[in-house]
This record gives sequence, C-alpha cells and structure tokens, in this order.
Amino acid sequence: MEDYRLKNRDLEVEDFIEGILNGNRVMLAKAITLVESNNSKHFLKAQKIIEILLSQKKESIRIGITGIPGVGKSTFIDTFGCFLCNMGYRVAVLAIDPSSQVSKGSIMGDKTRMERLAKHPNSFIRPSPSGGNLGGVNRKTRETIILCEAAGYDVILVETMGVGQAEYVVREMVDFFLLLVITGAGDDLQRIKRGIMELPDLIVVHKADGENLEKAIMTMHEYNQMLRYITPYTLGWTPQAVNASSINEAGIDEIWTIINKFERYTKESNIFDKRRDEQKWNWLHDLIKQELSDRFYQHPQVKQQLEIYEENIIKGKKSVSASALELINLFLFDAK
Amino acid sequence: MEDYRLKNRDLEVEDFIEGILNGNRVMLAKAITLVESNNSKHFLKAQKIIEILLSQKKESIRIGITGIPGVGKSTFIDTFGCFLCNMGYRVAVLAIDPSSQVSKGSIMGDKTRMERLAKHPNSFIRPSPSGGNLGGVNRKTRETIILCEAAGYDVILVETMGVGQAEYVVREMVDFFLLLVITGAGDDLQRIKRGIMELPDLIVVHKADGENLEKAIMTMHEYNQMLRYITPYTLGWTPQAVNASSINEAGIDEIWTIINKFERYTKESNIFDKRRDEQKWNWLHDLIKQELSDRFYQHPQVKQQLEIYEENIIKGKKSVSASALELINLFLFDAK
Repeated sequence: MEDYRLKNRDLEVEDFIEGILNGNRVMLAKAITLVESNNSKHFLKAQKIIEILLSQKKESIRIGITGIPGVGKSTFIDTFGCFLCNMGYRVAVLAIDPSSQVSKGSIMGDKTRMERLAKHPNSFIRPSPSGGNLGGVNRKTRETIILCEAAGYDVILVETMGVGQAEYVVREMVDFFLLLVITGAGDDLQRIKRGIMELPDLIVVHKADGENLEKAIMTMHEYNQMLRYITPYTLGWTPQAVNASSINEAGIDEIWTIINKFERYTKESNIFDKRRDEQKWNWLHDLIKQELSDRFYQHPQVKQQLEIYEENIIKGKKSVSASALELINLFLFDAK
Repeated sequence: MEDYRLKNRDLEVEDFIEGILNGNRVMLAKAITLVESNNSKHFLKAQKIIEILLSQKKESIRIGITGIPGVGKSTFIDTFGCFLCNMGYRVAVLAIDPSSQVSKGSIMGDKTRMERLAKHPNSFIRPSPSGGNLGGVNRKTRETIILCEAAGYDVILVETMGVGQAEYVVREMVDFFLLLVITGAGDDLQRIKRGIMELPDLIVVHKADGENLEKAIMTMHEYNQMLRYITPYTLGWTPQAVNASSINEAGIDEIWTIINKFERYTKESNIFDKRRDEQKWNWLHDLIKQELSDRFYQHPQVKQQLEIYEENIIKGKKSVSASALELINLFLFDAK
C-alpha cells in the first residue's frame, strides 16, 4: 500500500493524475472505482481525470482473451502474464471475478485464481463481477484501459467469458483477440458458439500437455482446417491455431512472437491506428444508443405501459409499429 | 385490374380491408404503398388497417431467400414460385428491384426478372428498391407480409441480397431461411460472408446442371462438411446442402419436401409459434431502438455538434463518455 492516508481524505483530480502518472497502484484502483461509480458527482470527476490522461500518448497493446468456462483462462493468464512480467513488461489484467457471480457460489477470488501473477511487482489485476450478460466486461472497461495505460502498463489483457455478446464487445476494444479452446469429445468443434470463430486473430488449444498432447495436436489441425473457411477479422492477417500448455509453459513464447508479428504488421499497414480510431468512433455511437435505450426503458411511464403493449401485440390487438411510436412519444414528451 | 375506379377516389380503411380480404391485388398493392409511405396521415390509416387485419388468423409459411448477386435468385424464385403456384398455393414474393438501384443502371424490372411467375394468377410480386444497406428489405417488410397473408397468400417469399445486415433482418421475420450458392473457383467457400453460414435452414447449390453438375455435387459435399461445424439456427434441425437447377427444375420438389418437413417439425415442437411471438417482440424493441436513434441523429443540434465532438474524441481532447452524455442532453432537452 503506497499511501494509506489516501483513503482518509477526499481526493482531487490532481491527486489522481499525479498518482496514476507515477504508477501508484492504489490511486489507479481508486480511479477505476470512481470511473465505475454511478454517482453523477463521481462521473464528472472521472471524466475530468480521463480527459487529462487522454493527452498522454502511451504505447500499449490491448489483448482480448476469451474461452468458455473450463478452458483454463485464469491459469493461462497467470502463466502468460508472468512470462511477460519477467521480460520486463508491465501487465494489467482486467479479469472476471467468479466469486462475485452469486449463482455459481465460487469461493476463489482473483488473488488465488492468478496466484503467481498477483504477486508480481509488474502486474496489476482488476477483477470485474462476472454476472450480467457481458461476461465480466462492463461499460467502463474502455475507460479502465485508458487509466491502466496512463499508469504505464504496456500490455493490457482483457479477459471475458464466452457469454452473450461479450466477445463482440471485447473485440471492439482490443488490438488483438485470442480464443482459448481445449480438446473434448470427438465432435467438440460442433459446440463452438455461433459466430465466435470469426473474431480471433489467434486460437490457442490449451492444456496441450501429458496424455492430452496428442489429442490437442489433432484439435489444432481441425481448427486450422476450419479457419480456411473463415473470413479473417483483421484484413490481411490469417489467424492460425497453435498449442500451448500453462503447466509446462510450452508454446507461451510462440504466442508472444505471433502477437509481436501481428503488432508489426498492423502498425506498418496502418490498421492498428485506424482500428483504434474506429473503435473510439464506434464506442461513441454504441454509448449513445445504449444510453438512449436505457433512459427509455427506465422511464416510469414506459415501464408501466410496456407490458400491456407487449401483450396486445402478441394477442394481435395492436400493431408493432403503432406500439413503438406511442411508447416513444410517451418517453420523449416527458424525458427530463 | 380488378377495379380501375379505385384509383380515383380517396380510399377508406373499410375499402382496404374488404379489398384485401377478397384477395384484390390492386387493393393489396395500394395498401402496401400506404404502409410504406412516410406521410403521417398515411401511417395512421395503415396502422388501422393492419390492426384490423391482425385479428385474421391465416396459416402461411414465410421463407427468406438470400444469396450474393450472380447465384440466380430471380431465376430460382421464378421456377420455385411457379412450382408452388401450379400446386395450387398462392405465392407472394417480396422482391428486390434491381432497376431502382441507380448506380447499377440495370434495366430489368421484376416483370422480366420473374417472367413466368409474374403472369401466374396465383402469384403476387412486390418489388422493393435494392438501394440502401438493407439489400431490398425495408422497415415495412414485416407489415407487408401481414398484408399479403390477410390477402390469402400462403407462401411468402422474401428475397434479399447478401448486403450489410440484410440477412439478419430477414432471418428475424421468416420461418425458414434458404441460402442460395453456386460453385466457383476451387477455394470459393472462402468468399462466404462472415456469419452467413449460421443463418440458413437449408443451403441450395444452384445452377447444378449441364457441365456444372459435377462441380455442384462437389460443392454440395463441401458445404455439408462445413455445416457439421456450425451450430444450427433452429434448435434440433440440422441444415443440409442440396443441389438444384432452375433450368431443368431438378431438386425443386425436394426443396419443398424439406420445407414441409421443417414446418411439421417446428410446429410439433412449438418452435414455429414461439419463434413468431419472439419475432414480434424483437420487432417492437428493434423498432424502438431504431426510432430513438433516428430521432437523435436527425435532431438539428445533434447534427450540428456531432462532427465537432467526433474530432475532439479522435484528437484525445474529449472523453467518449462525456461526449455521449452531452449530445444526449442536447437531444432530450429539445426533443419535440
């Protein structure tokens, strides 16, 4: 804990800026909490901090990591993160916190999920609740990335669960997207989530060790076969499947080599910067649509009437177009 | 022309209802024009008509047909539609009108695109402009389907081009979705649009005739191979690829057999009705979001300020969250 007194007084924008730029982890964590707050006073302060930090141009690579439960995301990030930290990189992990997902009743916090990495002086781990349909990503994850970069972290790992639209949301905020998979029963490729294959820049067949190695190699070939039919997400970059093991650390360096190659290629072809600009643009328009829709659905009169309209639509008593317009008028004539 | 005098007086809601329920094609066409109109007086009248017609429960099957330009969509619909009409079905086609897409400068209208079908007494063809990013589908297509069904059409074919989000939009308004493909150069499967493979209930390898037949059979096998890896859109229904030729009408009856089997399966498993209810629900919420977003982007002050905000975001002068909220307040405080 760099300065325990920070807890006990009201922090100013300048305190945050100074702390973050000095790489103070407590300050970074507090700033993220501020950003995540729904309190409007906090929002304004958080936005000021971000706007000042935005002017700090720092180089970083943002890597999204996804995979269904059981593929070993935490073990992989633990190993991969330590590998990077040991090379001298500063690594921030925006991770899913399974303990906060009530229904699963998991008792592991992130400290134990990524035990080695959590202790490394070059790492910063920020857990997010895994509940909701965003699978650990939230609307403030992009702002959190900016804060971490300003604090000097040069590799940002964004973990997400293969739930709902989470992968698409994360794909839109990272430079490189990695899909973790494992071998399974013979026809396990069939259980891949719809659309997921079109997102990654790299597929890693995890747990390729011991008795599992042979099967992992076969699975890797199957994925490589399948990737032939997929339009790559990143123009001019052909995604491939590789094997890796977090236990014996096999394949970890190869993954980093591929990411470096990707970074070089996308920077030389200007895809890297163009994508980041487009992501900002999409972020703005997504946020506008999301906020408009939130305000609509939270509106008291809309809330009160919506169900009645829905019932009448299903019963064929009311047309969908007329219902939509009446509800929108209800909202707009009393929006403030 | 059933009654040319209809053109010359102002039609009342009752005239439309009576005409449509009697299967009067001119009235149906006029009602669709009313539905498609942006005039608010027309909108109200159209909604009244639809609300009255909604109470008429008519059995129908809605079939979406997609495929990139060159696969022979119009020839296929011409042949398939005639096949159905000759069996006694009444077939409505909501088709793309290539002649209205200015940039392509096509001179073929729908009458010539589907020459045989257009002349058949059991058919009704309604062209839509193919411009815009919806590839021939428009926001009023769902209402048009309702009108056609009320007029007694029991097979509704919705044609769409493989452009933008059109397939997803059409998938959300039909019971059965058919993807037309053709053979090409060896690696032509690679050129399939991202995500498209996960939508169809059936893939038809078209132009499987003459010298092309052998290649078409190979292509069919390749698609069937590939479909093994795809999570089917309709639970419990495994999509397959079949061959067809519109020239010698081979495979056309098989396609109809498959559609019948699909209809039986989805009705017995209650997927059919459940999907239609969900589609209505999704339609309402899509429409609300679309309308909110339209009103936002058409708002004069938003229009005036948006570019300035976007520039400042890219330059790093302004945060995305703050920009979104400021723009929304601009809109909501002056929404009417």
